[in-house]
Amino acid sequence: MSRPTEGEMIAELSQIFGAHSIHLPVGIGDDAAVLPISNSHTVACADMAVEGVHFKREWSTPHHIGSKLTAANLADIFAMGAAPTYLLVTAALPADFTVVELRELAKGIKSEADKVGAVVVGGDLSSGAQLALSITALGTIGEDRRPILRSGAQIGDRVILSGLTGESAAGLAALTAHRAEEFKEIVEHYKSPEVNYSMAKSFADAHVNSMIDISDGLLSEAHHLSNSAGVGLRINSSQLREMPYFSELEREAKSLGCDIWDWVLTGGEDHVFLATTSSEIPHGAFVIGEVVPGSGVEVIGVGPRRSTGFTHFSQDK
Amino acid sequence: MSRPTEGEMIAELSQIFGAHSIHLPVGIGDDAAVLPISNSHTVACADMAVEGVHFKREWSTPHHIGSKLTAANLADIFAMGAAPTYLLVTAALPADFTVVELRELAKGIKSEADKVGAVVVGGDLSSGAQLALSITALGTIGEDRRPILRSGAQIGDRVILSGLTGESAAGLAALTAHRAEEFKEIVEHYKSPEVNYSMAKSFADAHVNSMIDISDGLLSEAHHLSNSAGVGLRINSSQLREMPYFSELEREAKSLGCDIWDWVLTGGEDHVFLATTSSEIPHGAFVIGEVVPGSGVEVIGVGPRRSTGFTHFSQDK
Repeated sequence: MSRPTEGEMIAELSQIFGAHSIHLPVGIGDDAAVLPISNSHTVACADMAVEGVHFKREWSTPHHIGSKLTAANLADIFAMGAAPTYLLVTAALPADFTVVELRELAKGIKSEADKVGAVVVGGDLSSGAQLALSITALGTIGEDRRPILRSGAQIGDRVILSGLTGESAAGLAALTAHRAEEFKEIVEHYKSPEVNYSMAKSFADAHVNSMIDISDGLLSEAHHLSNSAGVGLRINSSQLREMPYFSELEREAKSLGCDIWDWVLTGGEDHVFLATTSSEIPHGAFVIGEVVPGSGVEVIGVGPRRSTGFTHFSQDK
Repeated sequence: MSRPTEGEMIAELSQIFGAHSIHLPVGIGDDAAVLPISNSHTVACADMAVEGVHFKREWSTPHHIGSKLTAANLADIFAMGAAPTYLLVTAALPADFTVVELRELAKGIKSEADKVGAVVVGGDLSSGAQLALSITALGTIGEDRRPILRSGAQIGDRVILSGLTGESAAGLAALTAHRAEEFKEIVEHYKSPEVNYSMAKSFADAHVNSMIDISDGLLSEAHHLSNSAGVGLRINSSQLREMPYFSELEREAKSLGCDIWDWVLTGGEDHVFLATTSSEIPHGAFVIGEVVPGSGVEVIGVGPRRSTGFTHFSQDK
C-alpha cells in the first residue's frame, strides 16, 4: 500500500474527527477553522508528547498515545473550571508510522474528546524522525462563572482530591519491571489514564477556591497551589491511606519492590484533580488536608521523598 | 551553565512573550490561558515545523525558525479575513539546543507576532531527538464580516496576488548550491519570508470573494481555490512576468541554472496572498488571471511543470 498524500490523510482524519458533523461555520479544510465562541471567557492550553520522552511505541499503541495526550489537555481545561470545546492537533510522523497507525492515533484522540464533547477542528501533519504529537485545547467558561486559578487557595480551605494518585506511576513501574502481564489493570492506567472529568465539573460547580490537575505529581502540583497563593498546604498521609484502592496499590508496590508514597506523592499523569475549598465538599471528593498560613507543602506521616527538593516533610507528627 | 528547569525556562519565555503586559484575565502560568474573545467569529489554525523536514539548523538560526513558522500561522489567519490575536507554542528541544537558542527561538516568534499584535499565551516544552515546533494561532473576524473562504471564487472574478511568488524557493536553491554569500537577499527570503500582512487586510477590506496564502506553491493553492469553488482558474504568465522583481528573479534563476517558472509556480513558503475578486482591485495588488467556467488551473504561456500532476497547461495560447 503506497503512502497516501498529506491531502488524502487530512481528508480521512477530517472524517474521523467529524468536525463537519457539528455546526461549525468552517471546519477542517480551509486556512483556519471558524469557531462560534460565545461572549464568555475562552480558555486555551497546549501540550506535547514526544516518543522516547513521554511514551514508547513498544509500550503504548497509537490509540493510547492519542487518548492520553488528549486527556492531559482536557484535564487542564477542566482544571480552569471550563468546558472543553475545540482541539487542534499537529503531529510529526516517522517514516515507519503506517496509515493504520495514524488512523488509530486519530481515533484515540477522538475517543477521549468525545467523552466531553470536544471536537478536533484543525491541525497539521509533518514527517519527522520520531513521533511527536502536539495538541491545543480551547474551552469556555460560562458568563456567570470565573476561571478557577491556582492562586485562589485560602487559609482554612480543605484540600481535596478527585481520586487516588499514583496508578499511572504504578503501571510504569510494572512495565519497567517487565511484569505488565501480571499487573494488567495498573498498566492500563499508565497507557490510558481514566480522567474523572465529571468530578472536575463538580469541583467547579461547588465553587472551589483553587484547582489544578495532577500532571507531574501530587507534591509538585500542591507546591504550585501553595506558591501561587502564598499559603502553606498540610497533607495528611492518613487521609490518603484511607482512600479506595490504596491498600491494593500498596500490595502492588510491595510486589514490585517500590515505595507506595513515591507513587502517590510524586507519580504524574493520573490527571487527578487537586483543589482547595471553603464550601461544602463535593460528593465523591476526598479531603486530604488543609490550607495553613506560611509556605510550602507539609506531608504528615511520610518521610521525605528523594525527588522533591522543594518540599519539607515531618515524620509521624 | 547548567540547563535550567522547565519551570525556569517557562518563566523566562513568559517574560519574552510578555503576555502579562496585555490585559489578559489569565496568561502563561496556570493550567490554561483565559482569553477575552469577543462575540465575533474566532478562527483557529495550527502548523508544525520539524528539523530536517522544514528547516536545517545549519541554514536557519533559531530566530529564523521561530519567525518563519509564526509567519506561516499568521498568514493562515489573515487568509481567512481575520485578525490574529493569540498564539500557543509547543516545542521539542534536542539535548544540544542551548538556553540561548531557546531564547532566540522565542524572540523570533515574538518579533513576527508583534508585527500584527498577536500574543503568545501558552504552550509546552519537551525534550526530543530533533527540534520540532508547533504553533496554534487564534484570530477574530469582526461582527460585520464573514470569513473569506477558499470556496468563494466566482466565474468572472479577477485572480490577484499580493506579491511575486518564488523568492523563498530561489533562496533555497542558492543555499542548496552553496552560493548563499552571492545571493544574500533571496536567501534571507527563504530564512525569514516577509509576509505582506497589510495587503491581506486590504484584500479582506475590499471584500474579495476567496483568499488563500501560498504555503505550497501558486499552482497548488490555485488548485485549492478551483476545487473548493468548482470553477477554473486561468493564469496569464505574461502578467506574472510584468510583476516587480520578476526580471531580477529571472537573472538569479539563470545564474543558478534553475527554471524561474518552477520557482514562481511551484515554490512554497512565501505566504503571498492569492485571492479572487469581483470588486475593485485593492491598491498594490497584481492581477494575474481570471476565474472561468470549468475546472482546474490553466497557466497561459508556460510549459507544464514536472511537479504538478494535477494541473493542465497550455503553451503559448
